[in-house]
Amino acid sequence: MAGHTILVLNSPTARHLTLLDRLPPGCRIVAGDSAEAFVNATPEADILLVGAVSRELVEQVWSMAPRVQWVHSLWAGLETLLFPALIESDVSLTNGRGVFARSLGEFAIAGMLWFAKDIRRMRRQQRERRWEKFTITELHGASLGIIGHGSIGRAVASLANAFGMHVHGIGRRHTREEFENILQRSDYLLVGAPLTPDTRGMIGETELRMMQPESVLINLGRGPVIEEPALLHALRENWIRGAVLDVFDEEPLPEDHPLWALDNVLLSPHCSDNTATWLNDAMELFLENYTLFAQGEPLKNISDKKAGY
Amino acid sequence: MAGHTILVLNSPTARHLTLLDRLPPGCRIVAGDSAEAFVNATPEADILLVGAVSRELVEQVWSMAPRVQWVHSLWAGLETLLFPALIESDVSLTNGRGVFARSLGEFAIAGMLWFAKDIRRMRRQQRERRWEKFTITELHGASLGIIGHGSIGRAVASLANAFGMHVHGIGRRHTREEFENILQRSDYLLVGAPLTPDTRGMIGETELRMMQPESVLINLGRGPVIEEPALLHALRENWIRGAVLDVFDEEPLPEDHPLWALDNVLLSPHCSDNTATWLNDAMELFLENYTLFAQGEPLKNISDKKAGY
Repeated sequence: MAGHTILVLNSPTARHLTLLDRLPPGCRIVAGDSAEAFVNATPEADILLVGAVSRELVEQVWSMAPRVQWVHSLWAGLETLLFPALIESDVSLTNGRGVFARSLGEFAIAGMLWFAKDIRRMRRQQRERRWEKFTITELHGASLGIIGHGSIGRAVASLANAFGMHVHGIGRRHTREEFENILQRSDYLLVGAPLTPDTRGMIGETELRMMQPESVLINLGRGPVIEEPALLHALRENWIRGAVLDVFDEEPLPEDHPLWALDNVLLSPHCSDNTATWLNDAMELFLENYTLFAQGEPLKNISDKKAGY
Repeated sequence: MAGHTILVLNSPTARHLTLLDRLPPGCRIVAGDSAEAFVNATPEADILLVGAVSRELVEQVWSMAPRVQWVHSLWAGLETLLFPALIESDVSLTNGRGVFARSLGEFAIAGMLWFAKDIRRMRRQQRERRWEKFTITELHGASLGIIGHGSIGRAVASLANAFGMHVHGIGRRHTREEFENILQRSDYLLVGAPLTPDTRGMIGETELRMMQPESVLINLGRGPVIEEPALLHALRENWIRGAVLDVFDEEPLPEDHPLWALDNVLLSPHCSDNTATWLNDAMELFLENYTLFAQGEPLKNISDKKAGY
């Protein structure tokens, strides 16, 4: 097996990079978070492994590395990688999707139960030392609509089925009627779609107004799939019961953002998949894909670059 | 089918009693929440249906009604019914267990996820407008110990299995070694046992000290199964991570009780099974049992009166 040159666009001291020791001895690994780190290695680079770095850095290194055959993102989201030169090339782009799905699935259920059992009221009564029984609801028998039929949607659906929820989903190809049907009938609506030209703003004022006043919206995909001004409107005026949000238009969410103050929002700082092992799990996936690459086998998690995910 | 005389010990205007209209026309139904209501009917009474009334009333009506063959409690707990005369008699005692199990199962998972995803921290950061990522844990792969192998334990186990938790349980018959093993190994420990002479105080200081500092205790059975002073000690001194409590030694929990103030407790005012339909569901179960009774078939949910559940 010929050794490959792998450029690792990531803080070079990050602990998860130690897993790269498991690559075959012939491999040359260069890690860094600035273009200078790669100057000597770019002419021979075969693979780019991309962590938490800017789109500018990726584009810059890409333009210096004409031999690259494969780009892998540790993350699931591809926003920093979908620049025209990479999209137009025939280089394979793969990502870490699936690594995050299980914990995102659990968080979606946690958010639904938080509303169903009214844990917010439980905590308020606890602070006020008030013993007052109230009515809770069950996930059993409730309907869950899923927008985006990827690994997140599948993980949530699998758990929701165990609770006896009625699960309906739409993937990339759907009619407007199917979409509106999901909006109208769902007690819980999960958005797990990636951000693409098709999904950007797909839930705006019109769509939010179609939802039931008791329904709960959960966004674990990407913020801009839901129009934030319309969502704020919906939450303030109770067009819907509330929202569980792990993703936002701007992250970190600015300190003066009105979402912080809404009590009918359960707000996670994009860490609902932040398990102690996710970086290692994501590295394992890269190593597995590297073995496939070295053997000339088809890679896992190949993106449809033109579709944007 | 001969008509039966049924004494309904319950507020006579409660809405769920309208379901008794579905009993056969020959039945005589007398409802009330004081002994006077039943004076004329007690000599012929065949059945007692018991709702939320005092033990004194039940004992009083029982002593006036020599022909009673069957007593049914809408509730699962039998504390108000296990007086010596009923225990010693050969009258069948049945209860509403199972009706509550599904929603208690959901609440147990809600409580576990509340800790696993650290929703307490999420809400605190939200109030403080602080974007700070943190590490969450998964239920997947965590261990769940279940004390009490009744309908609550089964409902929780079924959901926990769907999450990929490792579930271990002990029922009424267990060795001390099995019990200690569950205490030591469980990330989450669910108490779903009824209150009996055997279970009262079964978790005290010795047992709490055997648990792991990261483990969470969940009590959905009856308060006195756990020694409250020892539990307070454990929660204040972090022998365990926290507790999810739906039941208490004294209910309503007194306003000056120290449990209210503990932040590592998720406290429900014994309403985690309070769905909009539970009273109807409990009535359906009674009606189903009445059909069996009238046909001379074995009843559902017959209690072991001497064992206390």
